[in-house]
Amino acid sequence: MIRRNQTFARLEGSYLFPEIERRKEAFRATHPEAELINLGIGDASLPVPAVVAEAMAQKSLEMALPESFSGYGPSEGLKELRKRIAHIFYRDDFSLDEVFVSDGSKSEMCRLQALLGVGLKVGVQNPVYPVFVDSSIIFDAKEIVSLPCLPENNFFPELRQAAGCDLIYFCSPNNPTGVVYSKEHLEELVAFAIENRVLIIYDAAYSPFIQQGEHPRSIYEIEGAKEVAIEVCSYSKLAGFTGIRLGWTIVPKELRYADGGPILPDWRRIVQTLFNGASRISQAGGLAALTTEGLQGIEENIAIYLESARILKEALVAQGISVFGGDSSPYIWAHFPGKTSWDLFEEFLEELHIVTIPGSGFGTSGEGFVRLSAFCSYSDAVKAAEVMKRKQELLIT
Amino acid sequence: MIRRNQTFARLEGSYLFPEIERRKEAFRATHPEAELINLGIGDASLPVPAVVAEAMAQKSLEMALPESFSGYGPSEGLKELRKRIAHIFYRDDFSLDEVFVSDGSKSEMCRLQALLGVGLKVGVQNPVYPVFVDSSIIFDAKEIVSLPCLPENNFFPELRQAAGCDLIYFCSPNNPTGVVYSKEHLEELVAFAIENRVLIIYDAAYSPFIQQGEHPRSIYEIEGAKEVAIEVCSYSKLAGFTGIRLGWTIVPKELRYADGGPILPDWRRIVQTLFNGASRISQAGGLAALTTEGLQGIEENIAIYLESARILKEALVAQGISVFGGDSSPYIWAHFPGKTSWDLFEEFLEELHIVTIPGSGFGTSGEGFVRLSAFCSYSDAVKAAEVMKRKQELLIT
Repeated sequence: MIRRNQTFARLEGSYLFPEIERRKEAFRATHPEAELINLGIGDASLPVPAVVAEAMAQKSLEMALPESFSGYGPSEGLKELRKRIAHIFYRDDFSLDEVFVSDGSKSEMCRLQALLGVGLKVGVQNPVYPVFVDSSIIFDAKEIVSLPCLPENNFFPELRQAAGCDLIYFCSPNNPTGVVYSKEHLEELVAFAIENRVLIIYDAAYSPFIQQGEHPRSIYEIEGAKEVAIEVCSYSKLAGFTGIRLGWTIVPKELRYADGGPILPDWRRIVQTLFNGASRISQAGGLAALTTEGLQGIEENIAIYLESARILKEALVAQGISVFGGDSSPYIWAHFPGKTSWDLFEEFLEELHIVTIPGSGFGTSGEGFVRLSAFCSYSDAVKAAEVMKRKQELLIT
Repeated sequence: MIRRNQTFARLEGSYLFPEIERRKEAFRATHPEAELINLGIGDASLPVPAVVAEAMAQKSLEMALPESFSGYGPSEGLKELRKRIAHIFYRDDFSLDEVFVSDGSKSEMCRLQALLGVGLKVGVQNPVYPVFVDSSIIFDAKEIVSLPCLPENNFFPELRQAAGCDLIYFCSPNNPTGVVYSKEHLEELVAFAIENRVLIIYDAAYSPFIQQGEHPRSIYEIEGAKEVAIEVCSYSKLAGFTGIRLGWTIVPKELRYADGGPILPDWRRIVQTLFNGASRISQAGGLAALTTEGLQGIEENIAIYLESARILKEALVAQGISVFGGDSSPYIWAHFPGKTSWDLFEEFLEELHIVTIPGSGFGTSGEGFVRLSAFCSYSDAVKAAEVMKRKQELLIT
């Protein structure tokens, strides 16, 4: 029988979320009366704008009528959606051919890895969204270079450590740290990539949380980025599409392999071979989300998440706790030097009845941190802030 | 900069459909009055059952309400849908854990290849659905063994040629030949796989066209298949979901690697890492399709397609043309020995104003054939049959 793909032996168990669940359940068993506030959530909780739901409902109903039924769409996505994405997010700086509609980032990671092939040297931020590491291992990366992002370096890694890498995954606003990188930082990243001929896969899933004009929302706001970067985006956090599944990827025509050949035609071939387009219904919703009404709904939701983040952050800061992120990001990265992340997780759970994510689950540089998420309901954010203020002595010790 | 994944150099251009389009357009330019009948279509054309559309519309609207909004579902798919699939298609012969809901077969091919890794020896039927070959090349197959399926062997390949393969792709009812394999043939396939320790990836996308009890609809109707086969299925042709995107894959717990370890946990890890579930809206539609009302609608649509296939096949048979498939399949594989597929394509186009797919586009063993599809409208099937009967002399020469 077929042999096991040897890379699986290198894949570490995915214990983080099962372990969190286990500890939550154990706590619930011994504290049946306790009301837990879940700040571990990495999922949208606010409903999608009505205009989005209505567009999806209409498209659904059209599917039952002979005159409006539609089958396969282009693997790359519907033209009008690609056009709208290019217009809204990139000021028409990309042609339709450079915009690819996806069903979300995880699937796109599989296709991107299939494009680039096995045996690569890959740079990742540490802490990191685990899919970047795991998908690299599945595709038999020859080396994964971990780039520590810590308070000491303002969470911007020593890029020299990534010299010789074939590609770097970079995420801003960052998951899990919530840190948003400045124009200067991203210029440094792009300059490094150009000089060292490293491909950047830029994860901009949380970019809608950046206030207009504050920091770059796209890597392509940096000159030269088109020659070195692929940008992966998502409707998940933009518009609450985590269950609806929609995203997009930009592959600029300027992007070239070492031999000078363009990457774009190979990527198109991958998408046409290993994808058959996102659901037309999701795409109809995605188009509606980018109308004036849709964008207003999106903005209102993001304002609520950001207000929750502000309240949570304030409660922690009020106690002198060192806190990062949370300004233009749904995530708050709270630092408790000298403690372990799992001890912190237990402390939040036992004393405050708050569920967090232990920072060490995102990599060694996450030790001593917990991630708090503003994707909870607004009332939960208010409640959590009150609890944290009331029981502050527990967090200070 | 990153080097080009060398497997791309082995990937042949995907010229078939662009070339068909080019020839169609050229014909239209010189025959603006001609009404073309498209029998090249590989896409559903009948609308989905109303109950499916309504379920999707309802789920869409729920997404805009705080009390019914839902975010990420399990990557493996919603439990109730997996349960229903196991019940309807497999008489509860699989547990939930062995059923994985996908967004369709092409995406699933990428994940299956990621599971199995690079450097494999792969057997494919010839003619073949091109994605099996192209995805194998993208994942750097060390050898692709082409297994001719011809009238001489009743389209069942000499399996001995596949000895030493790590896996075989097998499709029934077959695309493009429309041939449905008998229980005896599939028993031979499974026995070969067990004896030679070859993994079967069984593509059952067209299985709903098999009449109840006539031939196996699933490879798992064959004893021992659970130890050697993964089955990939789709709602695309089952229920007209080509634009909605939904499918499923069965990975039995009995399936083991050469070292005796189970494949299922690795597959689950792949799905959790490189997929985030099919759209909840598509899944709501998929669940509605498996209600009594949904199943009745599906059956009615398939009966129409099969009647179209019958009419088309009859028209060809009436002229003594050698025809395969078309009984329990939407595809008809018409044989014109001594002619090339592209000449046949031109003949159908020029003389009958019928668009076909040249058989050679599916592999060398397709030379001398054209594929006609019953996914056209019923009235187009009637029209095409009339044209073929009227101009029979053209086809006989």
